[in-house]
Amino acid sequence: MIPRYSRPEMAAIWSPETKFRIWFEIEAHAADAMAELGIVPKDAAKTIWDKAGEATFDIDRIDEIERETKHDVIAFLTHLAEIVGPEARFVHQGMTSSDVLDTCLSVQLVRATDILLDDLDKLLAALKKRAFEHKDTVTIGRSHGIHAEPTTFGVKLAQAYAEFERCRQRLVNAREEIATCAISGAVGTFANIDPSVEEHVAEKMGLKPEPVSTQVIPRDRHAMYFATLAVIASSIERLSVEVRHLQRTEVLEAEEYFSPGQKGSSAMPHKRNPVLSENLTGLARMVRAYATPAMENVALWHERDISHSSVERMIGPDATVTLDFALARLTGMMEKLVVYPDAMQKNMDRFRGLVHSQRVLLALTQAGVSREDAYRLVQRNAMKVWEQGADFLTELLGDDEVRAALSEEVIRDKFDLGYHTKHVDTIFERVFGES
Amino acid sequence: MIPRYSRPEMAAIWSPETKFRIWFEIEAHAADAMAELGIVPKDAAKTIWDKAGEATFDIDRIDEIERETKHDVIAFLTHLAEIVGPEARFVHQGMTSSDVLDTCLSVQLVRATDILLDDLDKLLAALKKRAFEHKDTVTIGRSHGIHAEPTTFGVKLAQAYAEFERCRQRLVNAREEIATCAISGAVGTFANIDPSVEEHVAEKMGLKPEPVSTQVIPRDRHAMYFATLAVIASSIERLSVEVRHLQRTEVLEAEEYFSPGQKGSSAMPHKRNPVLSENLTGLARMVRAYATPAMENVALWHERDISHSSVERMIGPDATVTLDFALARLTGMMEKLVVYPDAMQKNMDRFRGLVHSQRVLLALTQAGVSREDAYRLVQRNAMKVWEQGADFLTELLGDDEVRAALSEEVIRDKFDLGYHTKHVDTIFERVFGES
Amino acid sequence: MIPRYSRPEMAAIWSPETKFRIWFEIEAHAADAMAELGIVPKDAAKTIWDKAGEATFDIDRIDEIERETKHDVIAFLTHLAEIVGPEARFVHQGMTSSDVLDTCLSVQLVRATDILLDDLDKLLAALKKRAFEHKDTVTIGRSHGIHAEPTTFGVKLAQAYAEFERCRQRLVNAREEIATCAISGAVGTFANIDPSVEEHVAEKMGLKPEPVSTQVIPRDRHAMYFATLAVIASSIERLSVEVRHLQRTEVLEAEEYFSPGQKGSSAMPHKRNPVLSENLTGLARMVRAYATPAMENVALWHERDISHSSVERMIGPDATVTLDFALARLTGMMEKLVVYPDAMQKNMDRFRGLVHSQRVLLALTQAGVSREDAYRLVQRNAMKVWEQGADFLTELLGDDEVRAALSEEVIRDKFDLGYHTKHVDTIFERVFGES
Amino acid sequence: MIPRYSRPEMAAIWSPETKFRIWFEIEAHAADAMAELGIVPKDAAKTIWDKAGEATFDIDRIDEIERETKHDVIAFLTHLAEIVGPEARFVHQGMTSSDVLDTCLSVQLVRATDILLDDLDKLLAALKKRAFEHKDTVTIGRSHGIHAEPTTFGVKLAQAYAEFERCRQRLVNAREEIATCAISGAVGTFANIDPSVEEHVAEKMGLKPEPVSTQVIPRDRHAMYFATLAVIASSIERLSVEVRHLQRTEVLEAEEYFSPGQKGSSAMPHKRNPVLSENLTGLARMVRAYATPAMENVALWHERDISHSSVERMIGPDATVTLDFALARLTGMMEKLVVYPDAMQKNMDRFRGLVHSQRVLLALTQAGVSREDAYRLVQRNAMKVWEQGADFLTELLGDDEVRAALSEEVIRDKFDLGYHTKHVDTIFERVFGES
Repeated sequence: MIPRYSRPEMAAIWSPETKFRIWFEIEAHAADAMAELGIVPKDAAKTIWDKAGEATFDIDRIDEIERETKHDVIAFLTHLAEIVGPEARFVHQGMTSSDVLDTCLSVQLVRATDILLDDLDKLLAALKKRAFEHKDTVTIGRSHGIHAEPTTFGVKLAQAYAEFERCRQRLVNAREEIATCAISGAVGTFANIDPSVEEHVAEKMGLKPEPVSTQVIPRDRHAMYFATLAVIASSIERLSVEVRHLQRTEVLEAEEYFSPGQKGSSAMPHKRNPVLSENLTGLARMVRAYATPAMENVALWHERDISHSSVERMIGPDATVTLDFALARLTGMMEKLVVYPDAMQKNMDRFRGLVHSQRVLLALTQAGVSREDAYRLVQRNAMKVWEQGADFLTELLGDDEVRAALSEEVIRDKFDLGYHTKHVDTIFERVFGES
Repeated sequence: MIPRYSRPEMAAIWSPETKFRIWFEIEAHAADAMAELGIVPKDAAKTIWDKAGEATFDIDRIDEIERETKHDVIAFLTHLAEIVGPEARFVHQGMTSSDVLDTCLSVQLVRATDILLDDLDKLLAALKKRAFEHKDTVTIGRSHGIHAEPTTFGVKLAQAYAEFERCRQRLVNAREEIATCAISGAVGTFANIDPSVEEHVAEKMGLKPEPVSTQVIPRDRHAMYFATLAVIASSIERLSVEVRHLQRTEVLEAEEYFSPGQKGSSAMPHKRNPVLSENLTGLARMVRAYATPAMENVALWHERDISHSSVERMIGPDATVTLDFALARLTGMMEKLVVYPDAMQKNMDRFRGLVHSQRVLLALTQAGVSREDAYRLVQRNAMKVWEQGADFLTELLGDDEVRAALSEEVIRDKFDLGYHTKHVDTIFERVFGES
Repeated sequence: MIPRYSRPEMAAIWSPETKFRIWFEIEAHAADAMAELGIVPKDAAKTIWDKAGEATFDIDRIDEIERETKHDVIAFLTHLAEIVGPEARFVHQGMTSSDVLDTCLSVQLVRATDILLDDLDKLLAALKKRAFEHKDTVTIGRSHGIHAEPTTFGVKLAQAYAEFERCRQRLVNAREEIATCAISGAVGTFANIDPSVEEHVAEKMGLKPEPVSTQVIPRDRHAMYFATLAVIASSIERLSVEVRHLQRTEVLEAEEYFSPGQKGSSAMPHKRNPVLSENLTGLARMVRAYATPAMENVALWHERDISHSSVERMIGPDATVTLDFALARLTGMMEKLVVYPDAMQKNMDRFRGLVHSQRVLLALTQAGVSREDAYRLVQRNAMKVWEQGADFLTELLGDDEVRAALSEEVIRDKFDLGYHTKHVDTIFERVFGES
Repeated sequence: MIPRYSRPEMAAIWSPETKFRIWFEIEAHAADAMAELGIVPKDAAKTIWDKAGEATFDIDRIDEIERETKHDVIAFLTHLAEIVGPEARFVHQGMTSSDVLDTCLSVQLVRATDILLDDLDKLLAALKKRAFEHKDTVTIGRSHGIHAEPTTFGVKLAQAYAEFERCRQRLVNAREEIATCAISGAVGTFANIDPSVEEHVAEKMGLKPEPVSTQVIPRDRHAMYFATLAVIASSIERLSVEVRHLQRTEVLEAEEYFSPGQKGSSAMPHKRNPVLSENLTGLARMVRAYATPAMENVALWHERDISHSSVERMIGPDATVTLDFALARLTGMMEKLVVYPDAMQKNMDRFRGLVHSQRVLLALTQAGVSREDAYRLVQRNAMKVWEQGADFLTELLGDDEVRAALSEEVIRDKFDLGYHTKHVDTIFERVFGES
């Protein structure tokens, strides 16, 4: 997480201010529940809210205490006592630091996920808009970077839409994974705290109680969460790589928007580089990298150790902030992407009809030619186009063996582009539920 | 995937025999659907099944053809034509290799997943059985490897159960991710093949049609699949590490079953090493490692490239076979795990009452002592136990400042183990729905 | 490691036959050294060699014994005793299994590395040959996939050569990392075995004694080894991606060799796909993936645990066999790469002189125009070329503000391609030591 | 890189101030070299140093310009022109942004590496000191977490020393990898800049010229660099895990230093947790994670793309700052580690002589008993110790079959601890060159 690749709303979730505010709420809600149980005086629970509910916590002061105690929750509680007064002794009754830390992390990840879901919604909206805009913009489909058969630019975008819709569903699942609350005490037995306290705090903080925690919320949840972000990042990379390819000098079928003031290169002023999509490719690598340490965190020793903590202090912000930034950047890039339908057509014409070879092959076999012979016939004419720059249709029409099987009309019919786009509506119906 | 860490049923899914059989079924079902559409003669579709439906494909012959053509699907189709005869020309009409390859991979992954789900069910059954067996076996809970508060061995196992139940749900989700079928032609436009063919094949092969494919099924699905296996592997590691800890010489609260003929060490015959759980730790690292290349596979170029193929030829078998082996090994290990309740009790008594310090602390604050003073009082006596081997209860009873706040009866009450296990039923209810 | 991506010589290193042969040699050399020390009768040491020096070990028999003992070294020693007879009791005196296993792994990795070094030498030779062949083949250099300034295809290959020469040096370093021998007993103290035995075995097996082992050779060595292979794989990916780009339909400046019998696509016979370089891209992902588990292996517990073993049983063969295959495939691909200088020239001419913009910019500033003004002037004319298809030279010659600073002769001189290649000799001298 | 895990000196290397200062030096040295070649007026080159050599660059102003131009180097050069005046037009002549950016990154990584080397030297010094202090402190060696044979705590530390000395050598190699300078222009051909400029800047900045760059310094260098940091991190994890094990409640042979003011747990005041070593375990996971994106950066497209940049903006600081912090923390932890020789002795005595079983086994075979029989005899008595708490020596002395082979004196001699430490000097000589 560096300012260059951060957006304020997401970064704020990971600020000390937010963290201490969440800590306070957990403690105060827990005190309420304990007051309900008669463990804590109701007045004391109320005083906690009254004195600190709107208070600003002094981060420097907390840091100062932590430097002495080397324990962050104790430092916070000590500072809280400075604000609340004697009733502070009822705070954190029977609780352990992890009850606060882990539940806080859950709240932060849930909030971060809600932003990411919103990011995905915006991306999906942009993709859908552009997909319908270019539903019928014919372009060459490529496999192995080689021209294959025609498709439309809208279908390309429909694919991206479907992929990010899957990402959205994965993220919904991942949100559920980490939306749990643990207030279960030192080893998760509720020895010193009633399970009803956990239930109350969970409800107030928008979480579910963790069925069985062992001081900590189990880290397989977080591993699954960060693995999901990593998969989403990989999909960002896919779309970014597509744009990078389309913007290549020789292809140039689409281009990132280039604002008037922007300079492409200090040395070559004519250059317009796909710097956003390249940047996204790199950011995707980073978000992906955070999954492995999250998985290595799972095998905590016995009921828990603290090795996961330093990892999460880093990847919690790093992964969510970077992914938020990347999704927003990708959305903006796709919204403004400059598309060149003429260039798409021009590129497709490059091989003088070769893209229709598959149809001719099929027509030959349907006319009774053996698959092997049909292949040989098509290949023979295709190679003339490829090597000598001939026109595929002309060659086929002049090939006696081909003509023995197919009439001129049939051959010409195989060069109709509409043939390739006839099921675009079906695809759009499948993806968008409309066409 | 090496024989040492393979089980036959899972390995068979990845054999050439299975692969070619699935390829055949996809092609033959597609021919049926095309016959229904009138594209292929119904007799021809029937002949394909009649001639090859029970045939054994000659793998050496297919390999031989592939060495010449350098293309595996063409090699298979050529061999199929040798079996089926002239009607073979109706096979693969308008289809592309990836239609066969990708749908086959889906079928293989679905079958593999069904085995893995079965593995998980067996593991869950074993964990549940042992959890109820040791529901009340008191043991010390540890954080940071240090004694914390009592819990029960059953609670430890309930945690493992809950974790693997989450893994099961994740695997169900992952199965859905990869259970799709693509028969959509060269760039996914259905130009040469009707969408109804895909629907028919999907239904017959137990899959759903891929909403939009681009010759290939998008690889974000596979990335999510292998990432899920990686998370499951991490949970295997967690339970294995727990067993390794419990079997340490100084702890020895549980031990892997040691069969009469087994030799622990060529040099030290008294040693019984936790070799299964150590082995599982290593296998978990491997399954985890396969997630990254699966994620790197997502960003295929344009409609597709073939870079994912070599990766999947390796991780497809490697990840599923290794995980299957690991789950089965873990299940056997947990079923036979030798548990030593006496040793658990003995270890817990090691610090002469110190595990009850938290309760005493709480009692002091509830008696009106400030949190800071209570902490000081408990720490003062705890240090005598720690450093001088004193007994915690005796020290507390002899501490005037403590006694000023708490009566002997109250102090003695804080040393009751039942206090720590009173919510075990609640936890079991949450995890197993029964207690 | 799957047959499809294996070469026999490398695969043989990892066969059971090779392993048991190395085990035998370690044991027999150790017996020699112990005979020298008087611990073992010299006759016995000789008998071991006489009886088993040429023997074929019965792998099925060893497997059978291992199934009972669950210990591979004991199984081997038992079988060895069946061959050697009573003198076998002098084998493995004071040694521990890891002495044999770890030293054997070192021998295998050293042999594998020697093959890989040979692979790299062949690749370097191929790259050098093609680099000199195309030293003066002018082609456009591209940054961000966008045309930048001219370079030569030979310079591209010189870069690849320099990169793989670095890889070679890294591999030499990595070989040194793992070329160590440990015969130090149960915890590495030499309690039961004299250090001179280790020295003797090390020398005979082409290794150095490990300064301090703890039953095992420390795994940071292996982590560094596999990390090095991962970096080499990444360089393979780079060159492969370059070829994939060059073979794109719109670029087509070079092509993988396409043998007469080879079929590109079952559906589109005109297609020639860069399947080798795409395959290499995938294989690179796999070799890279093995580095992480190797690093996770480093933190063995105390003097050792066995978690690394399952990992190494898999990545030892997988990483070396795959990398060997990939290097050989890359070498063949580069040797036979079909290069199209005419296409390179044609692509470069695509933007009608824009590649010279940087030179014009420089000339303007040298003529006293401020950097900002020069940039504006160049950009103004460049945009006409870009957007309207104008010719850059013509535009510049007709721009009064430009002409006020630069004469026609000077402007024309900036369009000389020789300007860009004048330091190719320098680069070749740096890389190859000759030009 | 977060403040919690940062040290100021290392963090300062990655500040904007440092970066712009290095950029300036590169540009100014390049101007000097160009002045020497007569391309730039000598006065101008001098003016650049005079006006900006001591200037403070206004980071806010540069950011402001970058927001408009979206190009960081142009923003810097524009600001530099504001400071230097008209002579600024001679700055950056024929250079490209990457010349500045990549060379700057090299300088930053070299400086970071020098700090890391210094960190390692301090760690090595601490390890050596503690190793000699505990050279003869006998402790049990453990394999699989199970007691094996005696060793000394000094030998454990000697192993760590040898491991980090290897890390140091690797880091020296890695430093050489990234200590290169590229001032070679837009695609690395030196078209617009003489190679002598690169040589001059390289020398002045403490680097070597990159033999062949392609606008960028090839990223295999950086991949190797970050992979090396990842291996070092793995060694940090190993030593940390060792300390965590030693501090376990049941083992407690060593403890992290616990300062008077420090609080171990908010709930259990008697707990002293190995929080430093656990923290280091997590930090190691992070440094390790950065290797993969660095490797994914290698395959830049053609002469370069910019996808590596976002990765390096993050992992450049993150990896070096975190590793610096971790090494310093580890050094402090090892310097102050509290070692308990009595506890080591007590743990070793736990199994009443079983640790000597290997010696007895050996003695039996040397007395002519077959290996299988000797194993049976030792195992028979060992099991009595293990299962019934008997004393191993007593059992052996009372076993007639054993006594038939070995005299009481010989048996007793096998229980001498000095036997196990007799080669500690040899090991120390090998590791430290002294003993």
